[in-house]
Amino acid sequence: MNTLHPIHLVGAGPGDPELLTLKALRVIREATVVLVDDLVGDGVLDLAFGGLPARPRLVHVGKRGGCVSTPQEFIEKLMVREALAGEKVVRLKGGDPLVFGRAGEEIAALRAAGLDVVVVNGITAGLGAAASLGIGWTDRRVDAQGVLLVTGHTREESDGQDWEAIARTAASGVTLVIYMGIAQIRGIVDRLSSVLPPDLPAAVVQHASTARERTACTTLGALVETVASQGFGSPAILVIGRVVETAYMAGHARTTPTNEVGALA
Amino acid sequence: MNTLHPIHLVGAGPGDPELLTLKALRVIREATVVLVDDLVGDGVLDLAFGGLPARPRLVHVGKRGGCVSTPQEFIEKLMVREALAGEKVVRLKGGDPLVFGRAGEEIAALRAAGLDVVVVNGITAGLGAAASLGIGWTDRRVDAQGVLLVTGHTREESDGQDWEAIARTAASGVTLVIYMGIAQIRGIVDRLSSVLPPDLPAAVVQHASTARERTACTTLGALVETVASQGFGSPAILVIGRVVETAYMAGHARTTPTNEVGALA
Repeated sequence: MNTLHPIHLVGAGPGDPELLTLKALRVIREATVVLVDDLVGDGVLDLAFGGLPARPRLVHVGKRGGCVSTPQEFIEKLMVREALAGEKVVRLKGGDPLVFGRAGEEIAALRAAGLDVVVVNGITAGLGAAASLGIGWTDRRVDAQGVLLVTGHTREESDGQDWEAIARTAASGVTLVIYMGIAQIRGIVDRLSSVLPPDLPAAVVQHASTARERTACTTLGALVETVASQGFGSPAILVIGRVVETAYMAGHARTTPTNEVGALA
Repeated sequence: MNTLHPIHLVGAGPGDPELLTLKALRVIREATVVLVDDLVGDGVLDLAFGGLPARPRLVHVGKRGGCVSTPQEFIEKLMVREALAGEKVVRLKGGDPLVFGRAGEEIAALRAAGLDVVVVNGITAGLGAAASLGIGWTDRRVDAQGVLLVTGHTREESDGQDWEAIARTAASGVTLVIYMGIAQIRGIVDRLSSVLPPDLPAAVVQHASTARERTACTTLGALVETVASQGFGSPAILVIGRVVETAYMAGHARTTPTNEVGALA
């Protein structure tokens, strides 16, 4: 088995190709087969392969919640098959593969097939969103001493998230960052609101770190209406908690070319 | 004010210089003054400035918990003074500046001085640690549908963390990732153990992603003894929750040169 190459699970970051890590860029450029998730920013592959004489084979394997997507089992089998054939396989995902990315399952499947796995971290989408807002995930000025990341998109066969328990954690001052929460936003906000006050600051960020970046700062009570009236769609990040008070543009939606927060105030 | 340069708050990642983002590398290389936090990996500056004819001015401004450190107010004043003098200022921090990095306070102080601020995300230390262990922060196989990040190092004048509330969140299946928890580990584990069972999997990771990387997988009940007997020191990341079950080396301490998880099993 020593002649086989390890499979790299690589995070592409929140969208801006320049937020790729040096290591991610290197392993993508060394790959012969790249499985590309549909949350990977458009410019990432152009940046990675610009100037190269030939591109590796690209396989698009979208898994966006709610749409037609490639079955997880097929993706895992494809990675195994290509690696066993001697290919240098990269699995490229938006954000960081270790955050709501099923990396644990994929690592187990690849290891079960006798393959080695290397994880290359990426900037997770929730941190790209915080940079867009100009806020920390934590901030002692508003007693935000921790952050809870949850996903709004849970598998159908599960009982889903315990939103009341999540809300109680947020009520203690912890910042709440919700990934993939737009599709179910009305139900999520309804259940959070049984514990959290309607005037708690809340924000939505779409396309963080890219030219299409949009943010809106509002309150939990007005979040559903803000998302609907301003036409925010998936994928987007929701941030709920007092750290949103510290954003520059509280109360305003905006469209910005970069995350240069100071230039926007 | 248009002739002044924005101040960049830049994340250096968990240690491996190759985990710098392309954007971080660019702005560090364009800087004329770099304030360097002492959690920045040794190789990062060497990588950034290798091949350059001249280095920018470096100012080391450590803030490691429990040791002599540079006062926050001094750091902020220094950044303002240098930027107002026309310098291109980079504030380089370990991990991501938005995670327990006081970025919110620094952004506010810089904005109050009329300066623009740009945040450049980094790979946060807790994600580097998860990559070292070969686990996701979340994993539906063990019903870990969220992750809570907290710090074990809180300012003396505060009441500190509500560890019982944190433990209740972890009891619901959320993965708990504790930054800067080694110095207070006995008290933290005692308080978590009033809610969480002693056989809950737990891990400690030091120097993630570097040649000095060390990890140990154990249980909450044995965590204090493991950290002490194996000589883990600060800074380190603690991971508590069932995702640790999915690590390759559960039950074993190990010393590894990289985060190539598959090669270790």
